[in-house]
This record gives sequence, structure tokens and C-alpha cells, in this order.
Amino acid sequence: MAERSLLNQLTGALRCLPGVGPKSAQRIAFHLLERDREGGLRLAHVMADAMTRIGRCRRCRTLTEHEVCAICANAQRDASLLCVVEQPSQVVAIEQAADYRGLYFVLGGRLSPLDGIGPDELGLGQLEDRLEEGIGELILAVSPTVEGTVTGQFIADRALSHGVRVTRIAQGVPLGGELESVDGGTLALAFAGRRDF
Amino acid sequence: MAERSLLNQLTGALRCLPGVGPKSAQRIAFHLLERDREGGLRLAHVMADAMTRIGRCRRCRTLTEHEVCAICANAQRDASLLCVVEQPSQVVAIEQAADYRGLYFVLGGRLSPLDGIGPDELGLGQLEDRLEEGIGELILAVSPTVEGTVTGQFIADRALSHGVRVTRIAQGVPLGGELESVDGGTLALAFAGRRDF
Repeated sequence: MAERSLLNQLTGALRCLPGVGPKSAQRIAFHLLERDREGGLRLAHVMADAMTRIGRCRRCRTLTEHEVCAICANAQRDASLLCVVEQPSQVVAIEQAADYRGLYFVLGGRLSPLDGIGPDELGLGQLEDRLEEGIGELILAVSPTVEGTVTGQFIADRALSHGVRVTRIAQGVPLGGELESVDGGTLALAFAGRRDF
Repeated sequence: MAERSLLNQLTGALRCLPGVGPKSAQRIAFHLLERDREGGLRLAHVMADAMTRIGRCRRCRTLTEHEVCAICANAQRDASLLCVVEQPSQVVAIEQAADYRGLYFVLGGRLSPLDGIGPDELGLGQLEDRLEEGIGELILAVSPTVEGTVTGQFIADRALSHGVRVTRIAQGVPLGGELESVDGGTLALAFAGRRDF
């Protein structure tokens, strides 16, 4: 066939989904076409809408279709608490799991000069404005990797220079984690951070 | 939030994909929004197009956006061979793997009176017309399940009554299959169908 069939086009386009190879793409295409066209059509419309309309919150830089996200716009949230995370997905994870009622600031990455990611790319100027507005506590929830730690240190220094209290979420053995399968670095941190029973 | 955010809507809509739970849906949504909006937008458009425009081939009942699919419309194909399969995905699989140059007929299922799937649902009247038009060989490529076998038997009887030669694709040990991991039924078929070396 000279012309590519619509089915082939769909199978090809599905490859943009993470972890979807040629076989899965085919399976998904047939599933939608034969069993759930309504779901596929709804997904197509929502996806087109989301890809074009979702941008970044002007205040916290998380993903939202509004100028200011629902969390920043919520007057019930405690504006004296600011939790700094790397990615919008971490905002969602914390909202789903923790009983946190403060605000967020999304860096969008970690300091990595070699990859051209400096303070500007992470919106640190904007974070500086938030520190100047005055907050009570800045909670670092960056990943405990080398770059995450460096980024956290940088932000902590800025916050401390504004007289803002800085905390970091606890590191240790995960809930339900088998001690023998936890890496040595984590175990060492868990020991150093032990508390009275 | 009273209103459901577009991100939540996207995560929800992604659940229509087979095997995608809440966690994967979130991962896919963030992947598309943060790393591949262009791919997501292209997928949205192709998917909407496919869900609305793909129908069934008037001749062989496979999925196509044309009235007659590319295989049925191809004058180079051998019209004396008709391969009967259960699903459009099997047409794709055979086209990709085998050197088959004949035509297809897609049942869309197996005879299953208890589920209300009878000869009409499988287009057997249409298959009867094809038998009357005259073909040289009908190749059964239905799955070797109980219902598939019953369906195949039914179709074979009709074809034989029209004087059409009926064959069935070979059953046996799959290529690269470890003998010890092949089920007993398949092994028995493989022995019964042994050939001279």
C-alpha cells in the first residue's frame, strides 16, 4: 500500500506513550477500536485539550490550565509553609499521601551546570521573591541524589539568609521495606536519624 | 476543588487504555505534558480520526477506514485462497509473519450460543456468499480452543458442501519453545502430526 492506513497511523502514534513498543501499540489500537471506541474518543479529546491548554502556574510553576493553580488559589492553604519539589508529579504524590496544607514551589529539575540547568531554569529568582514576601518555613522535598542535595543546599542557603526556617523531609527505611533490601546509604541515614521509641 | 482539573481528566481518560491503572495513567500524563506534547497532540488527532472513521471492510469484515480494505482491493492477491480468522489483529499478524498472498475473512469471534454469538454475528451468511462465488481453498486459522474448533468445524462443513478444499494451519510445538514448557495437549498434537525428517 502506498498510503499508510489509519490503523497503522494510530499504532505508530501510540508509540509516543512511555514503555509502549510495536506489539503493545497494536494491542492498544485493537482494544480501543473493537472494545472501547467511546473511551478512545473521550481520551483523544481530553488529550488534545490538555496538550494545548495546560501550562505552568504563575506562582508555583506546577502544571495547570489556569493562570494560578487550584492550590495557590486556595485561600484555605497555609501560606506560611512552602514545600519545594522538583516535579509537578511530586506535588500530586504529596497531595495524595500527606496531610500537608501549605503551598508548593516546583523547580522543574535540579541544578546541573553541565546540562545547562542553572538557577534561572529552576525559577530560583521567583523563589527568591517568595522568600522576600516572607514565609515561616521552607520544606525541602528534593530527591536525595547528589544533584538534588546540591540544589537543596543552594536553596537552603538562600532561605536561611532571609531568616526563613528550613526543614527537609525525613530520610530512612521506607514503610514495609525489608531491611536487607534497603541500600547501605539509606540504612546509614536511618541510623543517624534514629529517634526515641 | 469543585471543578476537576484538566490534568485529572487526562489521567482519568488514560485509564481506558488496557493495563493502565491510576499510577501508570499519572506517569503517562506527566510524560506527555513535560516531554512530548507534540507526540501527545498527534496521537490525540489520529485517535479521534481512527475512532470515528475506521469501520469494517464490506468484503472481509476487517478494520479499515475504506469501504473495502487494502487487501481485498489489491488485484495482485490470489482470490482463490481464503483464510478465515477470528480477529482483525490476526490478519495483521499473518501479514507481518507469513508469506500469504490470498484473501481473508474475519469472523469477529467464535460461535458461542450462550453468549448470543451465532452464525449471523460471525457473518457466516457473507462467508457462504464467498463460497458460492467459488474459491479454491479455505484455510482455517481459528484458535485451537473448544469454541474455535467448533466454529472451524461448522465452517469446514459448509465449505465442503460447496466442494471447496478446506485446510487448517498446523498445530505443534512453537518455534524456540522448550519442550518441557509446552502443554500436554499441544505435545500430543505435535506427535500425532509428526512428519518424515
